[in-house]
Amino acid sequence: MYLNYYSSEEWNELLRFSETQETPFLVLFKDKVRQKFAAFRAGFPHARIYYAVKANPGTPLLALLRDFGSCFDIASIHELDQVLALGVSPDRVSFGNTIKKARHVREAYEKGVRLFTTDSEADVRQLAEAAPGSRVFFRLLMDAVTSDSDWPLSKKFGCQPRMLTDLVALAAELDLEPYGISFHVGSQQREIQAWDAALAQVRGLFELLANAGLPLQAINMGGGFPADYLVKSNPLSVYAEEINRYLTAHFGEAIPEIYLEPGRGLVGEAGVLISEVILIARKSKTDLKRWVYTDAGVFCGLMETLGESIKYPIHTHREGETGMVILAGPTCDSIDIMYEEYAYQLPLSLAIGDRLYWLSTGAYTASYSAVEFNGFPPLKTYYL
Amino acid sequence: MYLNYYSSEEWNELLRFSETQETPFLVLFKDKVRQKFAAFRAGFPHARIYYAVKANPGTPLLALLRDFGSCFDIASIHELDQVLALGVSPDRVSFGNTIKKARHVREAYEKGVRLFTTDSEADVRQLAEAAPGSRVFFRLLMDAVTSDSDWPLSKKFGCQPRMLTDLVALAAELDLEPYGISFHVGSQQREIQAWDAALAQVRGLFELLANAGLPLQAINMGGGFPADYLVKSNPLSVYAEEINRYLTAHFGEAIPEIYLEPGRGLVGEAGVLISEVILIARKSKTDLKRWVYTDAGVFCGLMETLGESIKYPIHTHREGETGMVILAGPTCDSIDIMYEEYAYQLPLSLAIGDRLYWLSTGAYTASYSAVEFNGFPPLKTYYL
Repeated sequence: MYLNYYSSEEWNELLRFSETQETPFLVLFKDKVRQKFAAFRAGFPHARIYYAVKANPGTPLLALLRDFGSCFDIASIHELDQVLALGVSPDRVSFGNTIKKARHVREAYEKGVRLFTTDSEADVRQLAEAAPGSRVFFRLLMDAVTSDSDWPLSKKFGCQPRMLTDLVALAAELDLEPYGISFHVGSQQREIQAWDAALAQVRGLFELLANAGLPLQAINMGGGFPADYLVKSNPLSVYAEEINRYLTAHFGEAIPEIYLEPGRGLVGEAGVLISEVILIARKSKTDLKRWVYTDAGVFCGLMETLGESIKYPIHTHREGETGMVILAGPTCDSIDIMYEEYAYQLPLSLAIGDRLYWLSTGAYTASYSAVEFNGFPPLKTYYL
Repeated sequence: MYLNYYSSEEWNELLRFSETQETPFLVLFKDKVRQKFAAFRAGFPHARIYYAVKANPGTPLLALLRDFGSCFDIASIHELDQVLALGVSPDRVSFGNTIKKARHVREAYEKGVRLFTTDSEADVRQLAEAAPGSRVFFRLLMDAVTSDSDWPLSKKFGCQPRMLTDLVALAAELDLEPYGISFHVGSQQREIQAWDAALAQVRGLFELLANAGLPLQAINMGGGFPADYLVKSNPLSVYAEEINRYLTAHFGEAIPEIYLEPGRGLVGEAGVLISEVILIARKSKTDLKRWVYTDAGVFCGLMETLGESIKYPIHTHREGETGMVILAGPTCDSIDIMYEEYAYQLPLSLAIGDRLYWLSTGAYTASYSAVEFNGFPPLKTYYL
């Protein structure tokens, strides 16, 4: 099932490599990342691409993206240090997390970072103090739009339009450089028109601010580009075409600079998580569902199955008739169940010791692993 | 607020010690663990106590419990190795996870473990093969009962009564030693009568099995004993008194051996997680709630706030009028919000840089930490 995700060469290489490795682990195809990066470049030829490090902070992956010429969106001072250690120049880094300690802002500034995102008065004031003169993006609250995405962003990030314009004025007054508006339509956003709604708001704010003598130059459209899971999305080329159309519709010839922060959309499909079936059980003789327990679980790579939000395609080498299963992880914790409501179908011939191949698991898997929950070690990653 | 949890000597010692430490971190009071262990001993004088290592696998904590004479309930081969490395004899260890690989069963057996818990035919067969002659507990499914608990266990563990009796017969046939029935009423179970309902079932199964020539000797009542959070529970002495009354009511003079597996109930109240307020923001000028962002979050110790299940008491040194807050962690992830629906009240004078003291955080915090989500390191633990 689902093997059209990978060429037969890729799949054979994966099998050959993974055979001798102890499960669970993640394999990342470097070439898939290269292809996807090229697709982003082709789809958005004028955009600057800032890879969202949080999606997968594996050092070999970051080095690869550095070599492709990617910039980096960091969520913490720790991610900054990791990126700088790879020889990335700080002018290729954006500190995109709106929640940051004053001392981390200062440290980032001292290390050369001059691009920050904000959404609150307190943060604007600490930026002015600790990172004087820096370029600042102002993040717009998108709660109405993100609720359609598979992993919505609620109201945690961004502020309302009226507060945003106040913050731009405050930043200018404090000698920061108000540079643009950022928004995020929600992670794994399958409704492309979400970008249209966001850009319409941004357009209005640009005009309003320009009229107030506070012109902005750039739009940071964040991430939200989807990876293919069980529920299909449009291909990236369709996203690019539509979003470029929206940009032209709203801004005509005067399209601002465009920043993108893909994470999942760039590395999600490049990963395959491999686990082993530990146990298959029914709770009574007449139980209609089999419980399939596997050595990867919610706390070892599959955190985004919480609430059954992300539904990964699962491949097994078994064929033939399928039946309903509940898929659960190895820990003594009841929330360590990946799929219960969604009646996943797996072959009836599935046996203890079989391997499960969780496709499209390159993003938001390894870094979410618990440090030692129930004693199990974090997920390993290998690169092909 | 809430400082009646700790004596003023304990609190002052905590402040003195923690002042110079960088947040976030967990402090564990050893003496509180000692008191709680003594309370379990006093309440259940005839029971064998197996500390559920998964609740908090900190090595100094395990060493302390070893010295108190505790036995250990392990969830994985990794936890076994940790406990054995402390010089604990394998006859003080129970492999309580019903989900285990055959090779881990064999390894545990080779290292001396002779006590296992099971709930499926496949596992009984692999126990017979890889751990011949071992004592076995059979876990009864408790879904009707656990749904009242704050952290229920669903159907992931245990099997229905009819399957349980079949498994006992199979185990006897395969020369294992059927030893007892185990159940778990759900973690943080505040309704003591849940044990009554469970024991009534166990009583019936004991009789039925004895009549079939398969007498059992022990009941493993698992954990479920609560820690004090915002929602209060009865004290442990009341739990002990009631549960002992149920045992006498159901078994009269012939009470089986009793095994307990406290985790949260033993170490929960011994911990204080200390975080720093990074940012306080409103999303618009008229926003009724303040967003309080702190450097500990769902992925750094506060995993059990998922679904707002566990509500920790939070102390700050601020006093005076309070107002509603939404409490969120430092990562760029929308599920990293601890309390949003439950309108937590914190002082209006709360300021950026203030410390928050999350009380009763000794269990299911540090070990749940993500290995590096958004670059943030796992939660540190210190012992007082």
